[in-house]
Amino acid sequence: MTASIVTIGDEILIGQIIDTNSSYIAKALDKIGIETTEMLSISDKEEYILSTFKKLQNKVNLVIITGGLGPTKDDVTKKTFCTYFQDTLVSNEEVLFHVTELIEGIYKRPISQINKDQALVPSKAKVLFNKVGTAPGMWMEKENTIFISLPGVPYEMKYLVNEEIIPALVQRFERPYILHKTIMTYGKGESLLAEEIEDWENNLPSFVKLAYLPSPGRVRLRLTARGKNEQILKEAIEIEVGKLQKLIPNDIVGFDDDEPIERVVGMLLNEKKFTLSTAESCTGGKIAQLITSIPGASNYFKGSMVTYATEAKINLLGVSPDLIEKYSVVSKEVVREMAHSVQRILNTDFAIATTGNAGPLKGDSFADVGTVFISVITPSQVIVEEFNFGQPREKVIDRTVNKALEILYKEILKN
Amino acid sequence: MTASIVTIGDEILIGQIIDTNSSYIAKALDKIGIETTEMLSISDKEEYILSTFKKLQNKVNLVIITGGLGPTKDDVTKKTFCTYFQDTLVSNEEVLFHVTELIEGIYKRPISQINKDQALVPSKAKVLFNKVGTAPGMWMEKENTIFISLPGVPYEMKYLVNEEIIPALVQRFERPYILHKTIMTYGKGESLLAEEIEDWENNLPSFVKLAYLPSPGRVRLRLTARGKNEQILKEAIEIEVGKLQKLIPNDIVGFDDDEPIERVVGMLLNEKKFTLSTAESCTGGKIAQLITSIPGASNYFKGSMVTYATEAKINLLGVSPDLIEKYSVVSKEVVREMAHSVQRILNTDFAIATTGNAGPLKGDSFADVGTVFISVITPSQVIVEEFNFGQPREKVIDRTVNKALEILYKEILKN
Repeated sequence: MTASIVTIGDEILIGQIIDTNSSYIAKALDKIGIETTEMLSISDKEEYILSTFKKLQNKVNLVIITGGLGPTKDDVTKKTFCTYFQDTLVSNEEVLFHVTELIEGIYKRPISQINKDQALVPSKAKVLFNKVGTAPGMWMEKENTIFISLPGVPYEMKYLVNEEIIPALVQRFERPYILHKTIMTYGKGESLLAEEIEDWENNLPSFVKLAYLPSPGRVRLRLTARGKNEQILKEAIEIEVGKLQKLIPNDIVGFDDDEPIERVVGMLLNEKKFTLSTAESCTGGKIAQLITSIPGASNYFKGSMVTYATEAKINLLGVSPDLIEKYSVVSKEVVREMAHSVQRILNTDFAIATTGNAGPLKGDSFADVGTVFISVITPSQVIVEEFNFGQPREKVIDRTVNKALEILYKEILKN
Repeated sequence: MTASIVTIGDEILIGQIIDTNSSYIAKALDKIGIETTEMLSISDKEEYILSTFKKLQNKVNLVIITGGLGPTKDDVTKKTFCTYFQDTLVSNEEVLFHVTELIEGIYKRPISQINKDQALVPSKAKVLFNKVGTAPGMWMEKENTIFISLPGVPYEMKYLVNEEIIPALVQRFERPYILHKTIMTYGKGESLLAEEIEDWENNLPSFVKLAYLPSPGRVRLRLTARGKNEQILKEAIEIEVGKLQKLIPNDIVGFDDDEPIERVVGMLLNEKKFTLSTAESCTGGKIAQLITSIPGASNYFKGSMVTYATEAKINLLGVSPDLIEKYSVVSKEVVREMAHSVQRILNTDFAIATTGNAGPLKGDSFADVGTVFISVITPSQVIVEEFNFGQPREKVIDRTVNKALEILYKEILKN
């Protein structure tokens, strides 16, 4: 079973926004064994949408479209959808009731024609009821292809994918299994690694595919197995990973089953009943924000002191002004004090502190732009490391956050 | 002049990574008046790549391809590129010298055949020299279409786009002007806004297009003008924006994507020499993180207390346990105390506090999932408002952040 994902909207084609919907949908389909063969982003003009539909008709089994379902004039997907299926728009009672309730009941204003039009759907469409927004999803079929149109607002799209589409596809179609296993390696470059594992790679079973995903300082190796028997796939991957572990034992640092690090860290803290606090300067609260983006974070995360100004470091965290005077706010002495203080004040097992100069200007210290100090306090030791993450500001902040979480992750495993 | 952007790699199609390259390239092309009509993500199999090239041949003037240029077996773009142009691979001396220097000089290990193969390029290709990596970019032409192949590593791609491709395109082709102006509005929903500006929208000049970009709590209106005379486009957009400002004066909070609300608020605070602090519970530090994402935030932002756990509200902010007992942590009494405390402790002109239940579980309070209290303290008053932002968690957090910044923005203007 194959799928194409189509995003509609000029905001993507002019680079104003990054399309994150396609990736979300592809991952959800991949998990149930549906292979996405192509993703497309196209303009919100009727002729482009129609010619794309025609091209995908009978070429793939499933087309999922996001975007262009809003109530305004630039939203043409619904009308075009209707044209493609030679159908007419009719008002859906359930949707109209929901929209009316939302506008009149929650927003407390009279419902307008534009609002009412949100309830129009092609007469032959199976309506995917959107509890979290006003635009419904629509499911239509023609010959060998299912076309599903979804709103582009990410949380509305996610709701419909998880609650409506995936369950319906799982129930209706038999699908093969697709298993992935990603092995994280640190230190060696892509080409050196490839040489060392060449024989292993050449002898992989035909249904197992290897991909190299390099990024600065690390290479992820992704094994993908496709087939009808889940057990056979699982065993094959296990055997191949075992061989690889013998081949490059010092390069493998872990297995990344595509969970973001804040979730992995959260699960570990939860499991081991450890608590965490952060004292953030250059990261400005981003570590706290990532940690608390995970449901249930209140079980292990107590809080953060975002001490952006030097005086906040003194007044809130009690960092000694003499220490700051002597070493400057961007120093290993200060970051260690920050971590100690927040750990003590919030009484946690682990604490992270960051201080640095993200730029573009030098600010309150003499440190070069890009200089960052990270401290992680664990039940058994105090770690302080210095980095230079270069420029621009955004990259310095992101790399600091990633590095801090990576250090934390490795330390939780040891404790 | 039209372009297609093609990304190659199964990691995108299985949702393992989000494609950010296409957006970057589209924005760079848009700035020089080249219209991207389609973006595609395809599998790294030879037959898919070839059929995509064939389909785009003579349909657009420019095809920019990223990915699949690495040294390993799963990297097939270069070979396929060569096949499509019926060319042969030859070793490029300059590239070979650069790769050798990198491997032997910097990494201090003997160069291997895999490394040397990085210097192979189709004999007819114009080589785009990649100073920041090992894989060169390649520029080939066939009939009316230019094909450019770039490495997928983002900073290598960006280097070649900025240093090689854009300058070459600017020099060689005459292009129309494309101007965008984005107007940010807060508070009103998309459909209500659309009704209020309907007449204005209907009377836009034919070369000016309007798009609505809604997200929780705000709508961005993007005007796009295309034409040969830059001055005419500029004037037309200025006139239309002027009309809009008269039409919805209270809804517009800023212009352009370079002015997200945290930047607008930052500029105002800076200008009026006001300072800000935040006490965040359900937003988990996201307000602080947005505020500090703006360079120069240290001029007006002192810090944040992210009091995620109830005990942190008591220990850090000194919120009275009796108050929490009586009203629960999600209450207007507690949020007001949080704002007062952080303002006092960090000695700022303005303070924001948030508390709420973002879900999915009820947590430490009896409040419904989605219930949020926001307090904003200004030099002249104390504001406390209650909201229900529904579900899911992600939306509750985002809407709380946006609403808090919107209240702050309006209050700064009054003071």
